[in-house]
Order: sequence, then structure tokens, then C-alpha cells
Amino acid sequence: MKILLIGATGTLGTAVGKTLSVRGHEVLTVGRSGGDLRHDIADPAQVAEVYAHAGQIDAVVSTAGDVPFKPVTGMLPEDYLSAFHGKVLSQIELVRQGVPRIAERGSFTLITGILAHEPIPTGSAAAMANGAVEAFVRAAAIEIAPQRINAVSPTVFTESLEDYGDYFPGVPPVGLAEVAQAYVRSVEGAQTGQIYAL
Amino acid sequence: MKILLIGATGTLGTAVGKTLSVRGHEVLTVGRSGGDLRHDIADPAQVAEVYAHAGQIDAVVSTAGDVPFKPVTGMLPEDYLSAFHGKVLSQIELVRQGVPRIAERGSFTLITGILAHEPIPTGSAAAMANGAVEAFVRAAAIEIAPQRINAVSPTVFTESLEDYGDYFPGVPPVGLAEVAQAYVRSVEGAQTGQIYAL
Repeated sequence: MKILLIGATGTLGTAVGKTLSVRGHEVLTVGRSGGDLRHDIADPAQVAEVYAHAGQIDAVVSTAGDVPFKPVTGMLPEDYLSAFHGKVLSQIELVRQGVPRIAERGSFTLITGILAHEPIPTGSAAAMANGAVEAFVRAAAIEIAPQRINAVSPTVFTESLEDYGDYFPGVPPVGLAEVAQAYVRSVEGAQTGQIYAL
Repeated sequence: MKILLIGATGTLGTAVGKTLSVRGHEVLTVGRSGGDLRHDIADPAQVAEVYAHAGQIDAVVSTAGDVPFKPVTGMLPEDYLSAFHGKVLSQIELVRQGVPRIAERGSFTLITGILAHEPIPTGSAAAMANGAVEAFVRAAAIEIAPQRINAVSPTVFTESLEDYGDYFPGVPPVGLAEVAQAYVRSVEGAQTGQIYAL
């Protein structure tokens, strides 16, 4: 398949890109600072540019989402708005603009995360964004069939434990290779409306 | 208790206000077009005005949320943004601005809805907003204790079946009186971080 990969230069994006390539897919990478196409999908106009340049696509895979971390009382309305644009609307636009453009039986795989259900202090914007994405995935799935949409919801990465492990005491980490397999499952499988939590 | 009720003139807000009054609470109503205070909480500045005028409050109860209904491919970015402002940021601001202002053991009860988990066609913005609110409630709960926060997530109201029943085929409706009791449970009980689905 020809797969559009968003978040090409990130920790997860790099792992997912390698895994999809090894499985024989043609991966077209999109990133703000690197990749085949340089665009910021938090801007709906740039999502349109991505699709205009990408040509025919079979699957869209997103590994990118930016959200601020602060205590609830330290947040400003702009922080929640930033999380909405950076992780929710960005991914919704990939789907909304992608439906008429990708293959008839193509798929979308979005990124969410454990904080939707297992919150940590300072994580209210991340939780909000993840909960929004998960519910959107379930709702869009019933409208876009036979196209499919799923989300991958990872906990902290084993490879990131040194940087982020202290925020997740006692939480079992997951290896990037296993997370990448969840993307394979979504892209090559037949399910829709699923949240793959791992 | 002295309770701030948002969405005073709505179908649910009216029922919740009556139930809380019957239970002996002092209810201060807020609405865009009616109520003791006339404000639109989709505007963070008006949330500040509400708290400035409300005085000491023991509990904040929200029954209001505006979201557009359209097919995914008929939505615009502005529609999802409107849902975010109308049901997510509005309620987040009630909490964020309310934490330093309400009683030390006060509570917030927000409104979400069945579409977060049981979507219907044209409901992707509603689902997104509901999922965002639910995850925010879980996340905020662990930060604001001993203050509490819960959400009420109703299905279609029995009293609204004539207008909305066709959108929910085979879904058991819930009476407004029962939904109002979920607000009582949240306000007078001791739980936090809960989503009361009914």
C-alpha cells in the first residue's frame, strides 16, 4: 500500500515508518521539520496541501500530537485550545479532508494515549485531547465505511522511560516495536472504530 | 448548599433546577437568554463575570452544551471548533476558573452524553466534545481534590422522544427526573472522577 505517515521525525513516527517499510509498504512521510513533505497539520490549510501533493493514498497513519502539560489551575484557555488544534482538529482534518481523497477501502489510524483513561497530574489537556480523538474515531467509523478508522493508544514507551518514566510510577511501559504493530494491525486488518490500547 | 446552575432555561437545566430546589438547595441560575445571571459561558470572559457576580458557591452544575450535527464530510474545521468552544472549553473554564473560587470541598458536575460511546450519524462533533469532557473530568479529579468533579452522561430523554427519538432507534430513553437524580448524586455524594451514564 501507499501510506501517508504524519509525524515522520518523532520517536514513534520513526518506528512506525520503519515497520511499515519492512512490511513492503511505500511510506510517504510528513513532518514539520523533516520528511518527504514539510507541513504542520495543526493548520487545516496545510492538511489540504499535504493531500494535494501526496497523490493517491491507501492509508493515513498519524503519530503526531502536541499538547501542553500544566496543572489545571495553571492552564489558560489558550492552552486547551492549543491542545485541541495540536492533537484533535489536526487529526480530524486528516480524516475529514482525506475521506474523498484516499482509496475506497482506505484507512485512517490516529494517535491518542493512555492519559484519556489513566490521568496524571498536569495531564488534563492531554487527557481532553485523547478522549476527544477516541470518541471521534468511534463516531467517524460508522459514517465513512467501507473506509476504516482506528486509533492507537499507547502508554509510556520503554525507550522513553529515562525521560518520562517518573510521570508514570508503576505503569508497565510498552516497546515502540509493539506500538508499531498496532499500526500494522489497523492498516492491514479489517477492523474499524477500534481503540488499540497498549 | 448554594449551587450555580448553568443552562437554566434548557429542558434538562429546568428539571435539574427544580430537583435541587426541592432538596432544599439555593439555586442560582445562569443562561444565555434567561436565569438569574445572563451570560454565555462559551466565552471565558463571561465565565469570569459569572463567578464575580455569584459570590460564595458550594457546587457548580452544568447542563448546557452546544454542538453542530452534520455528516463528517459536511463539517468544516469551524464546526468542530464551535463544538469545542460550546461544550468543552466552556465547561473546562467553569472548572479552571471555579477551583479558586468555590468552597474548599465544593464540586463540579458537567454534562456529556451517550454519543461519546454510542455514536449516531452526524454526531461526530458531539462525540468528540463528549469524549473530551469525560477525559477532562477524570484528569481534573486527581488534581483538584478535596474539591470534586463528575459528569452526567444521559441518553435521549423520554420527554424528547418525539423530537429526537428517530435518531436513537432501539435505544432505551431516560426520564429527566432520573437524570436530575444523577446530578443530586454528584452534588450531595462524595465520589469524584465519575461519569454517571444513564
